[in-house]
Amino acid sequence: MVKPSTNDLTELLKGAPAGDDEAAAFVRRRADDILRPTGALAVLDDLAVWVARWQAAEQPAVARPEAIIFAADHGVTAEGVSAYPAEVTGAMLGAFESGRASISVLAEVAGADVRAVDVGVGRPTGNLRVEPALDTKRFGEAWHAGRDAVAGSDADLLVFGEMGIGNTTPAAAVTAAILGRSADETVGRGTGIDDEARAKKVAIVDEALVRIAHVVDPLEVLAEVGGAELVAIAGATVEARVRRIPVLLDGYIATAPVLALDAADHRAVEHVRAGHRSAEPGHRLALERLGLEPLLDLDLRLGEASGAMAAVPLVTAACRLVTEVPTFAEFFGPAD
Amino acid sequence: MVKPSTNDLTELLKGAPAGDDEAAAFVRRRADDILRPTGALAVLDDLAVWVARWQAAEQPAVARPEAIIFAADHGVTAEGVSAYPAEVTGAMLGAFESGRASISVLAEVAGADVRAVDVGVGRPTGNLRVEPALDTKRFGEAWHAGRDAVAGSDADLLVFGEMGIGNTTPAAAVTAAILGRSADETVGRGTGIDDEARAKKVAIVDEALVRIAHVVDPLEVLAEVGGAELVAIAGATVEARVRRIPVLLDGYIATAPVLALDAADHRAVEHVRAGHRSAEPGHRLALERLGLEPLLDLDLRLGEASGAMAAVPLVTAACRLVTEVPTFAEFFGPAD
Repeated sequence: MVKPSTNDLTELLKGAPAGDDEAAAFVRRRADDILRPTGALAVLDDLAVWVARWQAAEQPAVARPEAIIFAADHGVTAEGVSAYPAEVTGAMLGAFESGRASISVLAEVAGADVRAVDVGVGRPTGNLRVEPALDTKRFGEAWHAGRDAVAGSDADLLVFGEMGIGNTTPAAAVTAAILGRSADETVGRGTGIDDEARAKKVAIVDEALVRIAHVVDPLEVLAEVGGAELVAIAGATVEARVRRIPVLLDGYIATAPVLALDAADHRAVEHVRAGHRSAEPGHRLALERLGLEPLLDLDLRLGEASGAMAAVPLVTAACRLVTEVPTFAEFFGPAD
Repeated sequence: MVKPSTNDLTELLKGAPAGDDEAAAFVRRRADDILRPTGALAVLDDLAVWVARWQAAEQPAVARPEAIIFAADHGVTAEGVSAYPAEVTGAMLGAFESGRASISVLAEVAGADVRAVDVGVGRPTGNLRVEPALDTKRFGEAWHAGRDAVAGSDADLLVFGEMGIGNTTPAAAVTAAILGRSADETVGRGTGIDDEARAKKVAIVDEALVRIAHVVDPLEVLAEVGGAELVAIAGATVEARVRRIPVLLDGYIATAPVLALDAADHRAVEHVRAGHRSAEPGHRLALERLGLEPLLDLDLRLGEASGAMAAVPLVTAACRLVTEVPTFAEFFGPAD
């Protein structure tokens, strides 16, 4: 798949195996018998069942979690949508690579690896207010960079993160377009802009929405008003689906491409759960549409996969809680 | 302090050092300069500041977290308030000690130790419906068992858990009495009882509330309708306050004694934050009174310190995020 097309996505998903219902049922039964009142840790039981289904394993485990962070620059920063200069994107890429970023610490606590993938630092996309962010060639590049990153991973749980100064603007545009919402409902304060700057951001997203009013295909929406790291996350998510690797969703920007995938073909996102709900108002709307209840709700708004990574220890624990704690029968001996 | 008396508690707290505002301010300043947008991880910054204040350390750390679980039996189980037989309390004590309980796994994920302290397994308290749960001697014993457990710990973050079949009934009674609420508002479903059993539990708590209507001192309330593990948690919480060890609060039962302490003398609980909000309706009321916003809200209802322990990695990460991630100046070099 090289062009933004739902038909091509659906074709690709035809070859993808379904989730393993038997492994899921096995873990569900075991969870109900474990040495604690049934349902006392129901949310964690559900997490373990989810991991079992997508790992196709009766012993679900988070032994090799990994964050893959896609970084890119955005033409729309020329409009002054961010409180930070675009050069910060490249600098942060260096911080990820040298293990000195916030995600580095969160990943260490979670026992996870971090990989940063440059999908367009120093090569800003088109200014989504007036032109397509990504043409077909650039879309295909970013999409395959996402797929390749996952194909080269041996992770058993994946978190996709992003870094790109200005990228709450494409996230807001994609979210508004997919949900049929106004820019005012999906534009937040990003890294910390004031009322005036926010009003300008709303106007830019409004112009973009008018510009693409004729676009029907959700993946074309992603190309028109998204960004290279958003497209890479879409490709990575689909590759994880094909390989049956569960994906824990980060915040607003990482969720926008998943929203587009869901609108295109729901099967593309069946393996996704929400790590956290961010402070951005549009993220709440996106999670509602996806029907996902986040594990954390702490108003985090950093990106870098940080919110999802903060939730990874809960998934690790959930898997260990159903595999390592004995059942009542194992602990007390079988009933006569 | 051997008898349940607010005067004695206030006397004890006179000797307790205040939180370290300078260490807290240092960490706050550093958090604002760190290589991420100011406030992007505000909830985690606040956690680190809290730990710094009570560890009196400019480098807050969760290197030795510990769960101390107090286990006891309850006379009120004779009324059939629980779905499980009272003998389960002792069996679970064995599971904690052998590292085979749910808390054992959650603690391993969090890098924490677990200690179980027997404060009355096989020695049920009085039936709170008709008589004081703990007389003065028993209160003093449990209180000092709690204090001693903390005095013997080298933890830098503490979580207090409980195990005691039937103990949502004393939790509901204490919570209702302290908050001036009805039994109907504070009695939930515990480990999983039906409507009929819940109605019976409400009636029992109502009788207890009438019986102690004349009791004014919150610590006397705790003795009258609490339980040995609840009193031990109160003593442990106060000892942690005296030693300036931050305490992360578990669920409904562990919160009830903290509610009583808060009503007696708020200084006793200044060092406490909420780990999670449980599925029990009374827990929401208790956290509101304490003014605490929980880190997790996952409808967990196991006890054993499990909900708070699930949140410990967030506190660990919060401390590392302010101490290990460079500031903008450290990363980019000082501005000219």
